[in-house]
Amino acid sequence: MTLYASSKAALRVYSESLAQELSSQFPGIRVIIVEPSGFRTEQNVLGYPMQIPRNPDPAYDSVREKSMQLYTSLDGRQRGDPEKAVELIVDIVRREGKSVERLGGGRAESPIYVPLGREANNDLEAKCTKMIQVVQKWKDVTDNLDHDDTNSVDLTRWGALRFFFLGSLHAYRAFQDRIRALASAGF
Amino acid sequence: MTLYASSKAALRVYSESLAQELSSQFPGIRVIIVEPSGFRTEQNVLGYPMQIPRNPDPAYDSVREKSMQLYTSLDGRQRGDPEKAVELIVDIVRREGKSVERLGGGRAESPIYVPLGREANNDLEAKCTKMIQVVQKWKDVTDNLDHDDTNSVDLTRWGALRFFFLGSLHAYRAFQDRIRALASAGF
Repeated sequence: MTLYASSKAALRVYSESLAQELSSQFPGIRVIIVEPSGFRTEQNVLGYPMQIPRNPDPAYDSVREKSMQLYTSLDGRQRGDPEKAVELIVDIVRREGKSVERLGGGRAESPIYVPLGREANNDLEAKCTKMIQVVQKWKDVTDNLDHDDTNSVDLTRWGALRFFFLGSLHAYRAFQDRIRALASAGF
Repeated sequence: MTLYASSKAALRVYSESLAQELSSQFPGIRVIIVEPSGFRTEQNVLGYPMQIPRNPDPAYDSVREKSMQLYTSLDGRQRGDPEKAVELIVDIVRREGKSVERLGGGRAESPIYVPLGREANNDLEAKCTKMIQVVQKWKDVTDNLDHDDTNSVDLTRWGALRFFFLGSLHAYRAFQDRIRALASAGF
């Protein structure tokens, strides 16, 4: 589940980056990021009848049991209707139906984010609300970690969003160095 | 940059899932997710002097030029002070200093999210605000994609957040099937 969820996150950001790359060279190509809740399909992702492979570590036994129960009880009773979802996606691609007013009149932005279903909407909203609270809670501390000199570049001038990620890795290496230094100083 | 950013996203969700796995078996182990802005380090991530490998596609030439410019001008002038950042992280681990009131009195939650620096705070807040707007904009359409029967399971009963991701893959497969069916019907 851990690796599965991670790969989903990677795919989202991959699509976001792809949209940005395409926009400079091929402005006509837009990327749609569809993130669905549980939809009712003929067959469970884990095969039918559903099986979750045994993990050699017995610590996972109870989680597996619970998951098996959930997915077995869910199979064929998922809320989402794939027909309706696909109709909406086709509407978005063609700019028809209910998508028209939401995509706006001009060139549609890219990526177009489309969370599908109540679970996706609720989870996404809850997670984003939580992350905004995290920022607010720590802001007066974490906004004040700058060097005291006046030599710094204001990254916001450069479109910080685009370059944010690379900045992270610089910092990560620095932290490793400092932590190693602290450790060898007997901290 | 696309692959780099994707791997960052995967690492974040990996850490979130890890926190959840650990919490049931080892409640004493907490996960801290640190997401820093640009911090000033001795050496650039791309080597010193910085080099971005040439891409055979000339379409990337101008982006590479711009990135080289940015990182060269940035080197040694990043806002963030790694010493201050590491002090804060150590405070959080030890529940000392400025972290005390923010971590609360009881058992600290896990993961503990720590965006570091103004760029990280601003970008995270902006992105989450945007995603909440996306949910709001499409909600009256995307909340109404359910089957018309009354047979559906209410996933929220089960802790939808934990199982949301697996639901997505079910749906993804269904979409592929439907889209294939639409295509073969000459849609």
